[in-house]
Amino acid sequence: MSRPAHRRPEYHKINKDLFVLTYGALVAQLCKDYEKDEDVNKYLDTMGYGIGTRLVEDFLARSCVGRCHSYSEIADIIAQVAFKMYLGITPSVTCNNASRNEFSLILDKNPLVEFVEELPTGRSSLCYCNLLCGIIRGALEMVHLAADVTFLQDRLKGDKVTEIGITFLKKLDEKKYRRKK
Amino acid sequence: MSRPAHRRPEYHKINKDLFVLTYGALVAQLCKDYEKDEDVNKYLDTMGYGIGTRLVEDFLARSCVGRCHSYSEIADIIAQVAFKMYLGITPSVTCNNASRNEFSLILDKNPLVEFVEELPTGRSSLCYCNLLCGIIRGALEMVHLAADVTFLQDRLKGDKVTEIGITFLKKLDEKKYRRKK
Repeated sequence: MSRPAHRRPEYHKINKDLFVLTYGALVAQLCKDYEKDEDVNKYLDTMGYGIGTRLVEDFLARSCVGRCHSYSEIADIIAQVAFKMYLGITPSVTCNNASRNEFSLILDKNPLVEFVEELPTGRSSLCYCNLLCGIIRGALEMVHLAADVTFLQDRLKGDKVTEIGITFLKKLDEKKYRRKK
Repeated sequence: MSRPAHRRPEYHKINKDLFVLTYGALVAQLCKDYEKDEDVNKYLDTMGYGIGTRLVEDFLARSCVGRCHSYSEIADIIAQVAFKMYLGITPSVTCNNASRNEFSLILDKNPLVEFVEELPTGRSSLCYCNLLCGIIRGALEMVHLAADVTFLQDRLKGDKVTEIGITFLKKLDEKKYRRKK
């Protein structure tokens, strides 16, 4: 999946609306397939995990991010480099605990829900964008970082912001998660 | 769905890989749901139709394409403006009949199959990218143009190129299909 470094960034870009509407079709299909919101959420997370494991190598190759020395740096890279690169937005990052392994990404806007005004009827527990959590989890696992990634707040559920929580589960082992040179 | 004209084009761009992998997840899900390739193809076309009907207004607003006077012009706009805008590629266009209502879009490369080496086992009749046909059909219908849109050749099926056939079904009625001013 790695690409030559000289490729123009523009080559990697496509129109967002096509993606957003296709994603909507995917969620609609899963809602048709699974009666329980929890099952749809789980499935989106699993799909996202698979996508994350495939995206990460290309992300590392193209982003040229260097070695990280803390979970805080990793959270910043996810927000400022990965979200920017893949979704064109930059969530803000907050650290939520003293041991500095729990972070929140706050999304002021969320392109994935641009065509969604509200959750489908009877789907109040649906985490519409749960694919994103799976992608983050899958990508982190590929660099040997175990994490729980879940939506803590969601504008589609009436919350003021959309917030993704990332809890890193293991002690940071620099040798393991650093990028291979 | 219309957007202010002053928005920067970059705002509409996202990373292609994320879309391509998400689309792959959608197709995989449909293959899980429907045993027959024909049903998957039909479903992808139907999904695409819905997406096309939603994309077209925004496409007309942003592309600033003017009134078309022939099917040939419309086929060119689909290839040179729409494909370029949404997928970053420009298929070549050929006209296939004397009455000039049958066209082919020849795709030298197809971003949607970038991560796909071959069709899944037992899925030899799958039109993996059938969403595209539905999108074109849906978008055309919104400007009062009925068309059959199908894959005529597909590299994933061993053909040398990927070819989408568009057959316009009605006599061109300029008043109906032109863009509203």
